[in-house]
Amino acid sequence: MRSEERLNSPSIPNDVEVALERAVAAHRHEHLFAERAANIKQSAVRDVFDISMRPGLVSLAGGNPFLQSLPLDKLGGLAYQLVTEQGLTALQYGGGQGTAELRRQICEVMAEEGITDADPANVVVTVGSQSAQDIACKVFCNPGDVVLCEDPTYVGALNTFESYQVRAEPVPVDDRGLVPEELERRIAELRASGANVKFLYTIPSFNNPSGITLDAGRRQQIVDICREANVLVLEDNPYGLLRFDGHPLLPLRAGNPDDVIYLGSFSKILAPGLRIGWALVPAHLQRRFYLASESVTLCPPTLNQMLVSGYLESHDWRGQIGTYRRLYAERCAAMLDALDEFMPAGTSWTRPDGGFFVWVTMPEHVDTYPLLHAAIDAGVVFIPGAAFTPSDKPSNKLRLAFSAVSTELIREGVRRLAPVLEEAVEKRRQESRS
Amino acid sequence: MRSEERLNSPSIPNDVEVALERAVAAHRHEHLFAERAANIKQSAVRDVFDISMRPGLVSLAGGNPFLQSLPLDKLGGLAYQLVTEQGLTALQYGGGQGTAELRRQICEVMAEEGITDADPANVVVTVGSQSAQDIACKVFCNPGDVVLCEDPTYVGALNTFESYQVRAEPVPVDDRGLVPEELERRIAELRASGANVKFLYTIPSFNNPSGITLDAGRRQQIVDICREANVLVLEDNPYGLLRFDGHPLLPLRAGNPDDVIYLGSFSKILAPGLRIGWALVPAHLQRRFYLASESVTLCPPTLNQMLVSGYLESHDWRGQIGTYRRLYAERCAAMLDALDEFMPAGTSWTRPDGGFFVWVTMPEHVDTYPLLHAAIDAGVVFIPGAAFTPSDKPSNKLRLAFSAVSTELIREGVRRLAPVLEEAVEKRRQESRS
Repeated sequence: MRSEERLNSPSIPNDVEVALERAVAAHRHEHLFAERAANIKQSAVRDVFDISMRPGLVSLAGGNPFLQSLPLDKLGGLAYQLVTEQGLTALQYGGGQGTAELRRQICEVMAEEGITDADPANVVVTVGSQSAQDIACKVFCNPGDVVLCEDPTYVGALNTFESYQVRAEPVPVDDRGLVPEELERRIAELRASGANVKFLYTIPSFNNPSGITLDAGRRQQIVDICREANVLVLEDNPYGLLRFDGHPLLPLRAGNPDDVIYLGSFSKILAPGLRIGWALVPAHLQRRFYLASESVTLCPPTLNQMLVSGYLESHDWRGQIGTYRRLYAERCAAMLDALDEFMPAGTSWTRPDGGFFVWVTMPEHVDTYPLLHAAIDAGVVFIPGAAFTPSDKPSNKLRLAFSAVSTELIREGVRRLAPVLEEAVEKRRQESRS
Repeated sequence: MRSEERLNSPSIPNDVEVALERAVAAHRHEHLFAERAANIKQSAVRDVFDISMRPGLVSLAGGNPFLQSLPLDKLGGLAYQLVTEQGLTALQYGGGQGTAELRRQICEVMAEEGITDADPANVVVTVGSQSAQDIACKVFCNPGDVVLCEDPTYVGALNTFESYQVRAEPVPVDDRGLVPEELERRIAELRASGANVKFLYTIPSFNNPSGITLDAGRRQQIVDICREANVLVLEDNPYGLLRFDGHPLLPLRAGNPDDVIYLGSFSKILAPGLRIGWALVPAHLQRRFYLASESVTLCPPTLNQMLVSGYLESHDWRGQIGTYRRLYAERCAAMLDALDEFMPAGTSWTRPDGGFFVWVTMPEHVDTYPLLHAAIDAGVVFIPGAAFTPSDKPSNKLRLAFSAVSTELIREGVRRLAPVLEEAVEKRRQESRS
């Protein structure tokens, strides 16, 4: 088809012609990609997103909150009221930083965990806290810069770091979280090698995926080490209020307003489909953070912000968090019971105090990635550990989520998983003998 | 306060101590910023966002759609139904590319303008089309790369380009839009100078801010020149369906599926507060575009997507666009009448066929930026032209929006603006004499 005819006759040429033209275009455009583009990968969590939906499968994969316990009638009524009575505001553009009302309420939510000095002026509402991670990289990271993180850590953050061509360098963790001495040593090593270390990305409470919590006694030490080394702390705390005993630990941000960027989210304590998160930013960094956020989305969705505000205003949100807490505590206990009952010798797992996840360790040299297929055949889905580590090596870990399924299904899922893991353990034992 | 005490006693030190600590932290953290951070600026449109809200002022500044004509009761009812009956889906995480239903419907919306071969698999739902511009830069632009654009062009896009350290190079425009010969010449010049030209960013219909439309007869020529030079086209078309005569021009994408990334939005034809836009991406570029989008936001807000879907499904959205079209046509006519009546000699302006904006030109060497203050004193707000151009020079242009205010207020706003401009013209005349 001659090019000048294209616009005026959008009739479809035959399949072969289309395929040929596409191949030629793909070839022509290959060198137009940015260097970073090759680094942007599919998340393993997303890989299994569709699989998890298959009927009959027990999904221990996705960290979805259990929305059945939300007051849907009330939220629906709120949405109706907002659109019909305040639609001209709720459906219109808003300020880039988020509504003043929501930012004020976010300070109340943070006070619940012990951040008592937050100023709404330093809160930036974001499209989920994923977007806040993207903004932090945009503001602070040149290609080649280093970000420190736990190993394992949140797969979405690792993807963001890769998309900014940032080197994610793991800091060793034990069952009480980041090891301060190791953090100090790692920073010194990296500095000595000429690396630009920009921030420590950490999920101190009920880490995703490990479920491990940074010990209260270590928290200030971690911030002090970072401050001393002039490394910012990016504290990602979506689960903090979901500590099973109802007594959340003080966030790293609490006494450290100038050194910690704190990321919060309504995804786990209300609803992820609204995509409303936030960053509490040190006052001297607020403007650059806010402008970067505005440059990506103009403003967070107004209706969603007002819906969260209305919910916080009119509903017993603390009570709702209590309901979630008890629910997840029960499910976590069910998962730990089932693991105790069914798991083969040679496996171990974490015992979280809150959050959504248990982290299972298989014997060394077992790669959990190929086990996923056998697990799916057995009727259960998990996320292989390799997804959550900055290293490219195979992983002998796997993540199990207890947030989204009933205690019965958790037990059933673990029961189905056990023989798959047992076979792998056995196979590994035979290999190491021969 | 000793650091180990901070976390455990979040009592507030005195003001001086806080201010000192902050200043020290600001100094320490200054070198942690990424190179791009200094490039991320406040948009001039945002600068006047708050001012525009002052009571008594007539704002011809913001390009807000007129939401009063929306069926708010119906939308509220839909929102209620979605949350109460499908809340477990609407409030949960969704797929990163957007819901299958909305992507299918988006293809119907695009068909209304003459894009008849769009495949929902190549549609990526984004958080407004601002976010799609960010993603396009993420996927294609290294620092120092060149993007071609109209001059003037959308301020939000210019901000995005700056945030990616991309050079925005203007291509001359006449009253029929981009001049093909100039585009060809500019690409050749830039190539000769060693520049990496990645894409042409264009708003072909009712350009923001100029209101100018790319002539139908030039459209295929523009795409052909880009294809020949192996430069992608990023077509930003939020206003296309708002052509006053009801006969939208064929988008550049229509006959060119492999060479044009098309950006659409529900912000102008439904509601910007939902932040739902989309990109229709050539099949061979779809995966990288989609993954980059997912890396920023995980998924677009589910409730908002379902609300748009419900609206498109159950409401006469074509009729609603007709209502908008007639309304904006009437307002545009009122603005052009008022300009004819009140504007001083030496000024001229565009006469758009659609969209939201009229672009006023003052005599050469008049800088419209300082006139903003006098205008605010006179009770009217506009956006100075300098905001919309990649150049750093003062601008003798200004943007007037007719979308958000009644015909009476448009007339009143222009009446208030006229003496401010007249004084500037007169002052300029005297300066040029002396």
